[in-house]
Amino acid sequence: MPAQDPAFSAAEYARRIALTRAEMLKRGLDALYVQDPSNMAWLTGYDGWSFYVHQGVLVLHDSDPIWWGRRMDAEGAKRTCWIGDDRLRSYNDDFVQAIDRHPMQDLAALLRELGLGRSSIGVELDNYYYSARAHLTLIHELPEAELHDATALVNWLRAVKSDEELTFMRRAARISEAMQDVALEMIEPGLPKNKLSAELFATAIRGLKDETGEEIWGDYAAIVPMLPSGPDSAAPHLTWDGRPFRKDEPTFFELSGCYRRYHAPFCRTVYLGTPPQAMADAAKAVAEGIEAGLDAGRAGARASDLARGLYSALHRAGLHKDGRCGYAVGLSYPPDWGERTISLRLNDDTPLAPGMTFHFMPAIWTENWGLEITETIVITDDGPAQCLCDRPRELFVKT
Amino acid sequence: MPAQDPAFSAAEYARRIALTRAEMLKRGLDALYVQDPSNMAWLTGYDGWSFYVHQGVLVLHDSDPIWWGRRMDAEGAKRTCWIGDDRLRSYNDDFVQAIDRHPMQDLAALLRELGLGRSSIGVELDNYYYSARAHLTLIHELPEAELHDATALVNWLRAVKSDEELTFMRRAARISEAMQDVALEMIEPGLPKNKLSAELFATAIRGLKDETGEEIWGDYAAIVPMLPSGPDSAAPHLTWDGRPFRKDEPTFFELSGCYRRYHAPFCRTVYLGTPPQAMADAAKAVAEGIEAGLDAGRAGARASDLARGLYSALHRAGLHKDGRCGYAVGLSYPPDWGERTISLRLNDDTPLAPGMTFHFMPAIWTENWGLEITETIVITDDGPAQCLCDRPRELFVKT
Repeated sequence: MPAQDPAFSAAEYARRIALTRAEMLKRGLDALYVQDPSNMAWLTGYDGWSFYVHQGVLVLHDSDPIWWGRRMDAEGAKRTCWIGDDRLRSYNDDFVQAIDRHPMQDLAALLRELGLGRSSIGVELDNYYYSARAHLTLIHELPEAELHDATALVNWLRAVKSDEELTFMRRAARISEAMQDVALEMIEPGLPKNKLSAELFATAIRGLKDETGEEIWGDYAAIVPMLPSGPDSAAPHLTWDGRPFRKDEPTFFELSGCYRRYHAPFCRTVYLGTPPQAMADAAKAVAEGIEAGLDAGRAGARASDLARGLYSALHRAGLHKDGRCGYAVGLSYPPDWGERTISLRLNDDTPLAPGMTFHFMPAIWTENWGLEITETIVITDDGPAQCLCDRPRELFVKT
Repeated sequence: MPAQDPAFSAAEYARRIALTRAEMLKRGLDALYVQDPSNMAWLTGYDGWSFYVHQGVLVLHDSDPIWWGRRMDAEGAKRTCWIGDDRLRSYNDDFVQAIDRHPMQDLAALLRELGLGRSSIGVELDNYYYSARAHLTLIHELPEAELHDATALVNWLRAVKSDEELTFMRRAARISEAMQDVALEMIEPGLPKNKLSAELFATAIRGLKDETGEEIWGDYAAIVPMLPSGPDSAAPHLTWDGRPFRKDEPTFFELSGCYRRYHAPFCRTVYLGTPPQAMADAAKAVAEGIEAGLDAGRAGARASDLARGLYSALHRAGLHKDGRCGYAVGLSYPPDWGERTISLRLNDDTPLAPGMTFHFMPAIWTENWGLEITETIVITDDGPAQCLCDRPRELFVKT
């Protein structure tokens, strides 16, 4: 049974497999084992919340990829992957979180069965879900194989988005905008933060009809909304609790809509009351910095140029910043909506290519407040980078 | 600065550290490095969505634990951990997702600085987030240290819940009930699944006032609601999409409320129309099986006894099942609300102790439909196990 409702065309999946095989060939890999759920989905369409057990996709040169995982999740693979049912392999439930055996023993047996017991196999050494024990078990079970570090091999191939993918990200961006609108509308002193967060989730997943009448249903984002307030907004990864928003405090809303696992992270900051002059000034500088960054973010320039564009503008306004101001985004599963490849920072000289997408996040965190005004951007064929969302680039003020 | 709003009393954290040190002593460990965010939170109170970068807690014998992570997340640690600010150590942003360096180099330097370069250190080999590369880097950087597998060392200590923890789980259970009520109320043929899922999230995070008037604010659960319908309900880990619910199909709702990271997973199945007799019969058998399991789930009995209680009742009704029918639950972060220790299955002979909590999930998955009627249960001092949620144990039917 083919997938009932594949996210992409057959041509799009074929493109991805071809890219992956070419990179494997370049590195001398006979097979590639990917455990990153985002890479699994990108290659096969697999979608399900089953990444808390060991599972992965094997990419081979001469036949379709093999999905491998827990027996019951093969049912999910049947329903979501473009590959044939005969390419699904699974292990018994006794392996799940057992002490006396490890699922990688089953994967090793499969690799031997495929004649790959003495081959050169790529694995994602620095990836959530591919645990140290998983790796040690594979080494132990396949003493004659060579395991090579293929961390982020597939992630890098995901950097340039196809038109189909960009359509999905633009749909996610419509949801991101709607979420920001809800935040700005609802926030007021005394409102418990969880009550607002609840409406952000509802807005994200309810989705919306876009301007063409297309129904955009909402998926869960790879990160939950983060909305720290006041001095807590110096701590960028706090989520929410039951305490109220308060007058004379800023709150930033870092969030993303998600459409079929594609994201468009987007952040705005709201101040309840009259913001301190330093913060208002910083917001203006950030807005100018974004313009400068977008202008520097042209095809053929480098990731570092984009960062430099931002930082130069900030420095002119007397703000010092030189860390990371963004990262590649697109398809993702928890715990990160970033692709963990290109960073927008001064020492990343990756050339920018049309179709690359980033969360461009010139955040200013001081000891007492945080200001985030961010955009998801796409590198274009010519001209400056484009923003996927369309909302004023300013510090929102509610008095 | 101490945490502004610690989840637990100082005595509760002291109990946890003492338990951990005793187990370390038993295993001859000088230090324990835990990267599991649930274990980090259990030991220190740390809470933030930052587990997509390398971070962890070091437990030592003669001084308070050390929180270690990314520089900006130390701000979150200041605000959520009970340990002093002088126990927070952090690495520069240049280490984040960099190719030319690894955060574990920084952790290794810290261990050497603490005089632990030649010591015996426990690490969580089979854990999300402790990657193969993280382990290989530590080995490389600390050639004279002995790294021992301490997978789930802390998880096992979490198995028996304190009264404070049980209070949190009961609060989560109130939210789980409210979510099921919303599912049953809203589901109808033609309603797109994402629209219902949106209200599940809103209900979960909005929280509620409990019967004592206590305001229970909702946190994000470690797993999103799963609500597969019809033949898809044979695939237990599908989430949702924009397609509508349909007449003559069952949908199960596996979900959990979350209060301060504590969960109470809870599942019910709803049939739109008149269910096939086999399914109605299975629901009755499952309800009887749950009673039998609860009765077998007494302090002093074994995890396997509880499973056997269920399976015997199911077998009497002609249903065959013998896999895993539950697992320990409590405090958790994505991707799993289970604790990955005790499994309710025939070959797990862990003795049951008062205060242990499980998601007892006698699910029946056939090729064409899935039926899940589940409970979060607590082992009591005497008598059968108790359910934390209170809703009829039946197949809900809506015509």
